[in-house]
Amino acid sequence: MAERLAIGIDIGGTKIAAGVVDQDGVIIAKLRRETPSTSPAEVLNAISDIAETFRRNHHIHSIGIGAAGFVDATQSTVQFSPHLAWRNEPLRDSVYRRTGLPVLVDNDANASGWAEWRFGAAQNESDLVLITLGTGIGGALVIDGEVYRGHFGLAGEFGHMQVVPDGHPCECGNKGCWEQYASGRVLTRRARAAVTDGTVLGKSLLKAAGGSVEAVEGAHVTTIAGEGNAEAIEWIAEVGDWLGVGIANIAAAFDPGIFVIGGGVSAAGDMLIEPARAAFSKSLTGRGYRAEARIVRAHLGPNAGLVGAADMSRIRARRRRPANPGGRVRVRAAARSSRSPRRQR
Amino acid sequence: MAERLAIGIDIGGTKIAAGVVDQDGVIIAKLRRETPSTSPAEVLNAISDIAETFRRNHHIHSIGIGAAGFVDATQSTVQFSPHLAWRNEPLRDSVYRRTGLPVLVDNDANASGWAEWRFGAAQNESDLVLITLGTGIGGALVIDGEVYRGHFGLAGEFGHMQVVPDGHPCECGNKGCWEQYASGRVLTRRARAAVTDGTVLGKSLLKAAGGSVEAVEGAHVTTIAGEGNAEAIEWIAEVGDWLGVGIANIAAAFDPGIFVIGGGVSAAGDMLIEPARAAFSKSLTGRGYRAEARIVRAHLGPNAGLVGAADMSRIRARRRRPANPGGRVRVRAAARSSRSPRRQR
Repeated sequence: MAERLAIGIDIGGTKIAAGVVDQDGVIIAKLRRETPSTSPAEVLNAISDIAETFRRNHHIHSIGIGAAGFVDATQSTVQFSPHLAWRNEPLRDSVYRRTGLPVLVDNDANASGWAEWRFGAAQNESDLVLITLGTGIGGALVIDGEVYRGHFGLAGEFGHMQVVPDGHPCECGNKGCWEQYASGRVLTRRARAAVTDGTVLGKSLLKAAGGSVEAVEGAHVTTIAGEGNAEAIEWIAEVGDWLGVGIANIAAAFDPGIFVIGGGVSAAGDMLIEPARAAFSKSLTGRGYRAEARIVRAHLGPNAGLVGAADMSRIRARRRRPANPGGRVRVRAAARSSRSPRRQR
Repeated sequence: MAERLAIGIDIGGTKIAAGVVDQDGVIIAKLRRETPSTSPAEVLNAISDIAETFRRNHHIHSIGIGAAGFVDATQSTVQFSPHLAWRNEPLRDSVYRRTGLPVLVDNDANASGWAEWRFGAAQNESDLVLITLGTGIGGALVIDGEVYRGHFGLAGEFGHMQVVPDGHPCECGNKGCWEQYASGRVLTRRARAAVTDGTVLGKSLLKAAGGSVEAVEGAHVTTIAGEGNAEAIEWIAEVGDWLGVGIANIAAAFDPGIFVIGGGVSAAGDMLIEPARAAFSKSLTGRGYRAEARIVRAHLGPNAGLVGAADMSRIRARRRRPANPGGRVRVRAAARSSRSPRRQR
């Protein structure tokens, strides 16, 4: 059997999404589990169970794990995860001991960025910047066909760039972080306030959420905006404005060819992307004297993380002996053909 | 003669600094000219004269030019220069036609970044971010031993990242750009206001500048701060604060191992760097769970641009046939030995 299948596992704050992924990025089997996020041991048990289940019906060669958090440069340890109970968790070795399979661990946004570059919105691009708008903002950089991780493995934490001095307090301990202005939590915050204030939109949101204010989320704003509600559309446009301003900042520093917008909030589509493009063009320094990056919506949706993690693990496993799970090997897609100008030297 | 000498030319808004540079980055001859910045033809004449002068006494193999402005990805054309009269100026070919030597053109900050990596503050580092604090803020990225130029050749324009919504107007047309808060113009602005207001510090500044308010510059603030003036020290510390905040933003996105601070304002030394380090540590997201980049002062001072431009041209010329001045060849230092972990894959 020539096909080399990999398991991709995306560990979020509340759930684990897992799949068996083939070499074309196609998910041929899928599973979901609730994440017992307070217990590293239970997360490990869940991963083991998932691997065992999949291996009953598939010949698996490797496991890729995307996790929300800081992953070290050797792609083995989750140093810190804001939503999970991990502190310096040696996840790669733990999973390897349980399964005997080569394991790769990466930040979930890096995994998603890789997937969008390989199989999604940024195929045939030399570079990409992925911005994932979920509860917060994550991100990833792909340069010249490789995930760029930074010196300490923490590149792409765009959500914590400060955009407003002394602005909204952020869970990270700082104030005015970009994700306080351009992520799903902005919509959630406004939506719940509208419910509390009893506005017309608030009543619609409460109804959409099934009657409980705690259940009101940014996604309900998107739903109601999609039905034509002008105020909800305006809220999303304001998030889009801030998205565009932040993208212009990243473009000033990094000058990529394409920005790919993923995460749950990207479901708002053009209601989000059009205002972002307008604010980006308006904010970009040197406009009129430079080419502008494209801003596009991600293609792979919520599956990007598991597809990318699986693909990275598959490529890496192919490049090293199975007996050397600890080795660091560059992950590079060998199969990409004609690439446009890369890093310009 | 094994030694391969190159001419490095740094074209600023008001002057041209040029030198003959050997393969160790040592300047063995130097010249300065006023820049007739309103006339591209006169800049070209000045460059030709400089080359002719140097070639009387030195065997020159290539010319590297660092220019303030947007340089295209093929390192041949200055697309736009805010301080000079260039718009899509094909500088490389013009200078080649005059001199017959291989020519490389790059952004002056890229040239400085390269020089600091090769011969200065970031030797033996895998990557660096250079921040040049002059009238504005320029910058450069070196990744894995190569200048990273971005998709369109414009990476490193850190000064135009927005840090204050609706903030100080910037010459670029936007508001709240970082360079409006953390560059020499901040000191100049405050210094001239103090002179106009007739404060005690204003009187000292006016005296230091020879009695003319138009002659008062940020450098005078640094001089007086160096003499122990508490208010001048505070001004520089405030610039340092903003410097640290912006560095934390770049670190969140890009996560380099070292930030090198160059440009005229860096002459303030620890009066600037210490507050910057403090603000960086305070602003960095995930602090306590991550390694922190070092922030150091540049080593090569105002010569960095011409040294870097010369060195890039020397390396490139060595790698291609002289008959092919238009070819794009990667500039990479072959002679670097042990490098610490690069881009982490």
